[in-house]
Amino acid sequence: MNLVLITSGGTTVPLEKNTVRFLDNFSTGSRGSISAEYFLEQGYAVVFMHREVSDCPYACSPRLIPLNSYLCRLFNLYRKADEEGTLLQLGFTSVHEYLFMLKHVCQALQPAGERAMIYLAAAVSDYFIPDHLMEEHKIQSGSDNLNICLTPTPKCLSLLKKTWCPRAVVVSFKLETDESILMKKATGAIEKYKVDCVVANILKKRFDEVCLAVATCVNDGG
Amino acid sequence: MNLVLITSGGTTVPLEKNTVRFLDNFSTGSRGSISAEYFLEQGYAVVFMHREVSDCPYACSPRLIPLNSYLCRLFNLYRKADEEGTLLQLGFTSVHEYLFMLKHVCQALQPAGERAMIYLAAAVSDYFIPDHLMEEHKIQSGSDNLNICLTPTPKCLSLLKKTWCPRAVVVSFKLETDESILMKKATGAIEKYKVDCVVANILKKRFDEVCLAVATCVNDGG
Repeated sequence: MNLVLITSGGTTVPLEKNTVRFLDNFSTGSRGSISAEYFLEQGYAVVFMHREVSDCPYACSPRLIPLNSYLCRLFNLYRKADEEGTLLQLGFTSVHEYLFMLKHVCQALQPAGERAMIYLAAAVSDYFIPDHLMEEHKIQSGSDNLNICLTPTPKCLSLLKKTWCPRAVVVSFKLETDESILMKKATGAIEKYKVDCVVANILKKRFDEVCLAVATCVNDGG
Repeated sequence: MNLVLITSGGTTVPLEKNTVRFLDNFSTGSRGSISAEYFLEQGYAVVFMHREVSDCPYACSPRLIPLNSYLCRLFNLYRKADEEGTLLQLGFTSVHEYLFMLKHVCQALQPAGERAMIYLAAAVSDYFIPDHLMEEHKIQSGSDNLNICLTPTPKCLSLLKKTWCPRAVVVSFKLETDESILMKKATGAIEKYKVDCVVANILKKRFDEVCLAVATCVNDGG
């Protein structure tokens, strides 16, 4: 059986250890959860790593269920996946939890070699606040401006292909709001992180249009 | 009939005009929505100003519904409020929308005088980014730190008592993580903004314990 790890939903960046405030992004996890349903129906075993509150397979937001008659079908499909043990769901909230979980799940998939796919649909924060720089208590408000200094999130994408799960097929995602830089960023990710495929989207058109950048393999005449 | 405006849930602070990232807080709106149910059951007409995705009266998160038999009772209570026209629900997402809506609803409540209560349970962002300082597109990630400069949100609490709805009874909320400053902050809000009552909570104990700071009225011997 083929295996796919799907990451889905956004990660938070807490500003305080006793967290009241956090940075977030608009992701609902609908792309990841619908993809999970598709993979399950194609016979894959799915590890679904999702933001705690975001959409899950066969349990997506009502806005995505146009007819009540679908509910019954969804329930039966969910029960099938549950009975066959083909769906494992793991929840995260902060970017810290996400990175820790991703590393361990990828390492666990290593023995599956090329039969494993890693499908990174989660909207991971580009910046975070490392523990030692984080405030202990809720930041107090005052009459002055508040400056928040964010550190780039450690890039796990290259580690993934280099050490965590080298033989897996890796699909990553790129979302932009500016069309003029989209494909440059997508092909850039293939060169930089050695992923196999990048699915590229523009925020406002993401339900209607998708661009694909695929790594070209050099064959030795075979 | 008595009237209450309840605000509920957190507000977001967009970092970009084409918003991908935003600041948020952990509020689920459960206190506001449960309070709305209580006020309705006491015969109040309720204007419920809530974060689009947060809990609403008689439709709170499943974690708050311990038994299925409650569902039927909740549905009937919701139908009653709907039929009697005693519940008006208005949604917001960003802090900009919240402030604009609060001002207009408060001004509309002015003719009700002392019969109106304003119950500010929403977790409003203390800081925001004014439109003219906001980035147009998604902030690009890079290898450098990212500094975000936030401006204090205009304080509407004093405007509320001074001009928007002077005769209404105003209840505000204060949440802290540090117990040593809680009551000082709560009584400070009464002096500073002339609100009638402050409900004060510690983040970790908020389901079990609540402190109350009430304005003392000086009577002329009556």
